[in-house]
Amino acid sequence: MNLVDLRPVFRVVGLLLCGLALAMLVPAAVDYAARNRDWQAFVEAAASTGFVGLLFVIGTGSSKAFALGLRQAFVLTVCSWLFMTAFAALPLLGLGLDYTDAFFEAISGVTTTGSTVLVGLDALPPGILLWRALLQWVGGIGIIVMAIVVLPFLRVGGMQLFRTESSEQSEKVVPSAFQMAAWITAIYAALTIACALIYGLSGMSVFDAVCHALTTLSTGGYSTHDSSFVYFRNPLTHWAGTFFMLAGALPFVAYIRFVRGRTKALWQDTQIRTLIAFLAGSSVVMALWLAVAADMPLGDALRLSAFNITSVVTTTGFANADYGQWGPLAASAFLVFTFVGGCTGSTSGGIKIFRFQVVWLTIRSSLLRLASPHRVVVMRYGSRILSSDIPASVLAFVAVFMATVAVFTIVLTGMGLDLMTALSASATAIANVGPGLGPIIGPAGNFAVLPDAAKWILAAAMLLGRLEIFTVLVLLDPQFWRY
Amino acid sequence: MNLVDLRPVFRVVGLLLCGLALAMLVPAAVDYAARNRDWQAFVEAAASTGFVGLLFVIGTGSSKAFALGLRQAFVLTVCSWLFMTAFAALPLLGLGLDYTDAFFEAISGVTTTGSTVLVGLDALPPGILLWRALLQWVGGIGIIVMAIVVLPFLRVGGMQLFRTESSEQSEKVVPSAFQMAAWITAIYAALTIACALIYGLSGMSVFDAVCHALTTLSTGGYSTHDSSFVYFRNPLTHWAGTFFMLAGALPFVAYIRFVRGRTKALWQDTQIRTLIAFLAGSSVVMALWLAVAADMPLGDALRLSAFNITSVVTTTGFANADYGQWGPLAASAFLVFTFVGGCTGSTSGGIKIFRFQVVWLTIRSSLLRLASPHRVVVMRYGSRILSSDIPASVLAFVAVFMATVAVFTIVLTGMGLDLMTALSASATAIANVGPGLGPIIGPAGNFAVLPDAAKWILAAAMLLGRLEIFTVLVLLDPQFWRY
Repeated sequence: MNLVDLRPVFRVVGLLLCGLALAMLVPAAVDYAARNRDWQAFVEAAASTGFVGLLFVIGTGSSKAFALGLRQAFVLTVCSWLFMTAFAALPLLGLGLDYTDAFFEAISGVTTTGSTVLVGLDALPPGILLWRALLQWVGGIGIIVMAIVVLPFLRVGGMQLFRTESSEQSEKVVPSAFQMAAWITAIYAALTIACALIYGLSGMSVFDAVCHALTTLSTGGYSTHDSSFVYFRNPLTHWAGTFFMLAGALPFVAYIRFVRGRTKALWQDTQIRTLIAFLAGSSVVMALWLAVAADMPLGDALRLSAFNITSVVTTTGFANADYGQWGPLAASAFLVFTFVGGCTGSTSGGIKIFRFQVVWLTIRSSLLRLASPHRVVVMRYGSRILSSDIPASVLAFVAVFMATVAVFTIVLTGMGLDLMTALSASATAIANVGPGLGPIIGPAGNFAVLPDAAKWILAAAMLLGRLEIFTVLVLLDPQFWRY
Repeated sequence: MNLVDLRPVFRVVGLLLCGLALAMLVPAAVDYAARNRDWQAFVEAAASTGFVGLLFVIGTGSSKAFALGLRQAFVLTVCSWLFMTAFAALPLLGLGLDYTDAFFEAISGVTTTGSTVLVGLDALPPGILLWRALLQWVGGIGIIVMAIVVLPFLRVGGMQLFRTESSEQSEKVVPSAFQMAAWITAIYAALTIACALIYGLSGMSVFDAVCHALTTLSTGGYSTHDSSFVYFRNPLTHWAGTFFMLAGALPFVAYIRFVRGRTKALWQDTQIRTLIAFLAGSSVVMALWLAVAADMPLGDALRLSAFNITSVVTTTGFANADYGQWGPLAASAFLVFTFVGGCTGSTSGGIKIFRFQVVWLTIRSSLLRLASPHRVVVMRYGSRILSSDIPASVLAFVAVFMATVAVFTIVLTGMGLDLMTALSASATAIANVGPGLGPIIGPAGNFAVLPDAAKWILAAAMLLGRLEIFTVLVLLDPQFWRY
């Protein structure tokens, strides 16, 4: 029996923990400068995180440290997210939270979900608010790198479709995974800075602008105010939010191409076109409906519908209005939006646009062949031909996604949540959106009142969703460990 | 341009209408014998139905009448269901219903859904009650014949998997489609008689036993009492109902094999085993939960959970308890059960067991290939190897099914229904189950109070679900009519 060698895995986890410990010193400095005693919690957390990280690095020392095989890549993906969350929760204990709440808040941050158990955000120490925002920003870059560099090779849920995109010889985007990660980081940082500048120009304080830029580009959705974007009155702020949430949901490979001179790369990408068309169409329809049914001025209606729909579809989770009060039609639409997601290779969660495109191609070719059985239907995705294993992979993913939502819904109702709260909580966690529906966890609600067991269940759901479910499931398969 | 010749289609529709007119004379005779003036409504309806039917037959007379091509088969399938419903609704106008309610009741009958807009069933003329039951019985046989003889050749939603089953040379079940239909009718009738006898022996009146047997084997769910099976006190009646609802949800091809001497055909069928295991497992779990959480005697708990779960999963829709009162856990479980469905080639609706099996095989092989990318995974369904087009067909079906539920949910909330009522109404109509969730359309509720527009929307949903959606969609495709 040939066991999987976990030493290289824990070596990388150790390095990541050391990085996390360093990151904790940023909010520590902010809270120290603001003369807030919280800085001690950050320093203590940094010390223990760094200590464990160093132990891992030293304990696994070997020259083959970075030679990761396929199985190790799966284990590393899951372990790095789990360990980062477990330690990222530590500074939150300084607020007097118990570990359940701290872990929930940390995993909701790292997975860029944005559901919160904290009430009274406006009065919290700035270090804590910055830490929540930083967690989402780091989590966002983690998921882009994972989606572009790791998942296509692991062939998770039809992502092999994008393997060629980042590896084929003829149009090699950039040479290596490390260079790729550097490009991603640079573009992500540049977009974040641009977003912070525009937020600031539109009237946000510097601190608010930085924190919200960090959580906008990561499509995370943590705010520094209980009322989220309702707090900001300038319409320009809302439109900037809409724009940069969308920017965070676009495939970063397209940005890299764009920056490297292929100026049409953004507009020619079929995923981007479809996402923008979907957002524009839904926003206009809902704005017209709000204007007619709720007698709202059309400009306001468009601003509110575009912001909130973009927020849910890109799985960000900001709200600039309590759309829970918009009636049952809006509720059902937002429930559907919760499942959609942005583009793959971005910070977005959910089922994601390319899978809907593959599903649509499959439906279309099924219909064509129903009418003319001997017809040969070639499915094209952009300029590529869909290989026959892609629809099956996408079927497996979508089915597992829906089944996971169903199972978590049943489990949550078993804990006494009503059906609508349980269903929307399950969907919003697995799709990494943030707010659910109903008075408890809706856009104006808070996850604090849920029972502890439900918080752990939802934490698991967020991680499953973030890692595209299969990455976790494969570890639970005894066959995986066998040879 | 080569138009599709619709004459043979309308010739068959004409013949079916003539048959429907004859069938109307049965309830007419019953109401005449019961000295109920309703018999006149049946005779009038029979006269106009027969007249139109004869017109169709005469007007399309030609020697090639039964030579149906592929396109004509699609048109016939949709038209026959629509015309049958439109005329089957006529006798119900005699009750003073408007045509919306009469059409809803008729299509809910013909599609074996079982949602009703009639209140005060116990006081209705026996002819009307018998007519509702007959509609479900006839609709049931229609769907079995369609699923076994027509759909596999049309390759709808992965049903090509069953094409070999009824056509391959080596184990030819029966020689021709007409003989197949005769076998199906004989077995269906025999099971219905057996069910009626056992219902009668367990204490039902002869009339109740006949009506309920007709709607049990067709997994239809129309009752002669507002309180459905709650009206019957004998536990034996409930268990007999559970047994025969299950019998109606098994593939009729397996029955034919069984009757023709392959005695293991029923037990060896992988669809049947999976359905029974799923029903037994869920019933036991829910019974234990009812025994613990609601302090119910275990025997009663098992009887209630087995009956209501079997009723919803087989898409029958009887209820022997108001499970709407069992709390949120039961509500979420029943919402999930609404989607499941029975076996293909039966009277059941829903997604159906074989599609879940294909999905499971796809997930399983995806997981295996994640861990070992170079592995060749052969997917076997029973003794057959799944061809590569099956997962794509099933993906297309499941996606269209879920999207249809989502679209109808949004439309229904737009008419003012609350989200849970709209979602469960949409699901229960498309899966042809019958009752939804919530106080309005739950197992103790009634569809009468819905707005007229919602009734037409749900009527369309029932027809879409019954015809496996694609059969209808393909007609809406301009390409279908082009050459």
